[in-house]
Amino acid sequence: MGYLHEGHLSLVKAAIKDCANVVVTIFINPSQFGPGEDLSSYPLNLSQDIDMLYCVGADLLWIPTADEMYPEGYQTWVSVEDVTKPLEGAMRSGHFRGVATIVAKLFNAVQPQRTYFGQKDAQQAVTIRQLAKDLNYPIDIVICPIIREADGLAMSSRNTYLSPAERQAANVLYRALSSAKDAFTGGEHNASKLRARMQEIIAGEGLARAQYVSCADPDTLRELQGDVSNALLSLAVFIGKTRLIDNMITGMKE
Amino acid sequence: MGYLHEGHLSLVKAAIKDCANVVVTIFINPSQFGPGEDLSSYPLNLSQDIDMLYCVGADLLWIPTADEMYPEGYQTWVSVEDVTKPLEGAMRSGHFRGVATIVAKLFNAVQPQRTYFGQKDAQQAVTIRQLAKDLNYPIDIVICPIIREADGLAMSSRNTYLSPAERQAANVLYRALSSAKDAFTGGEHNASKLRARMQEIIAGEGLARAQYVSCADPDTLRELQGDVSNALLSLAVFIGKTRLIDNMITGMKE
Repeated sequence: MGYLHEGHLSLVKAAIKDCANVVVTIFINPSQFGPGEDLSSYPLNLSQDIDMLYCVGADLLWIPTADEMYPEGYQTWVSVEDVTKPLEGAMRSGHFRGVATIVAKLFNAVQPQRTYFGQKDAQQAVTIRQLAKDLNYPIDIVICPIIREADGLAMSSRNTYLSPAERQAANVLYRALSSAKDAFTGGEHNASKLRARMQEIIAGEGLARAQYVSCADPDTLRELQGDVSNALLSLAVFIGKTRLIDNMITGMKE
Repeated sequence: MGYLHEGHLSLVKAAIKDCANVVVTIFINPSQFGPGEDLSSYPLNLSQDIDMLYCVGADLLWIPTADEMYPEGYQTWVSVEDVTKPLEGAMRSGHFRGVATIVAKLFNAVQPQRTYFGQKDAQQAVTIRQLAKDLNYPIDIVICPIIREADGLAMSSRNTYLSPAERQAANVLYRALSSAKDAFTGGEHNASKLRARMQEIIAGEGLARAQYVSCADPDTLRELQGDVSNALLSLAVFIGKTRLIDNMITGMKE
């Protein structure tokens, strides 16, 4: 969706390392924004994006228009069901239908052997893996680790919305996730206790308001109860008016 | 869906004429049958199908199982909206979601340059054209003409359900369509009058009961009113318990 940062570039760099030819698309996909979401104000800086991709060495950049992607009479939608229901899907109606549809369109238009997505959008990664499997796409889905600022804040185009005070507060997502993950490593495997620990840390930050805090199965995204062996810890937190998400997987080295 | 007849083979022959390699799939797709439809009794004769395809000269035949196509945890669906609402879509809830999904899966698995479908399933042809356009499939969709028995009955695997008396009555679909098309050629362009003419001919056949009779736009499938310049004439008729469909396009040579 453009307004590129080191997180996006890490995907392009990983692709360049693996592949003979690398195609990048930039498209602020209207169908994945709900009413009242930030489509019209989503940050955009195409000339800077183009420079960054040129320097990194991408082979082809495709920037379709909304009219090209959704011409008059457009009427076909791809829905991934179970894994899109909780978490972001519960908060953002229609979001993943928009994501799955645009990803299927880009897969078909570009016909890649491998594609690269970020773990930052954990549910999106799970959804795209499920989509590719269910619809028989002969495409490797590579999920790349989250790239973070020095204080742990996950890189995101939406970080640009934060005031200086909010920017300071925003690393509460990282602190909450790290604390739960450390507790897990230290032997605390109870899902409710891991969630409570994250809630508590967010509650301690005045500018933050948790929307959800989750300890879920990393493949089905079903919320876990009791002792867990491997979990996706994830959360959505409002810092002022800006909604941020972040996640960690208990069994994975950060 | 197998139980091949000359209609299917005409598609394979057209593909062989155009293409270096021809892949055929046989799959009785459970997701396009509604509750109470004839999935469990759908006719099957794989060894005969294989012989026929071998003789015609197809290069590859793929007969996936339902478990391969819809394994446990399957949850992704492709929906084409507007063009699937009237006609067959109004009678067969979920049918075209099943069709669009399996066609997308087969497109992805096989990655053909061209695909061949029959005009017999007119709404399916329109749906697949819309699917390919909307989802950016770089695939030519070739629609081949209906193949008919000597008395005009469109070939269909379901014709095997007909008793001898029903088989005789079944060409009423062809007679109704031909009469409306001849009337159009003769200057009767009023959509309601063309529909009435088809209704009347079907009403004259004791074993037949019309489910719908349509004069619609060939691309949008919206029902037409007043004078029409080009129309898809189509109908669904029960002959006894067997449901048959057929169609003609006014501007097209049969």
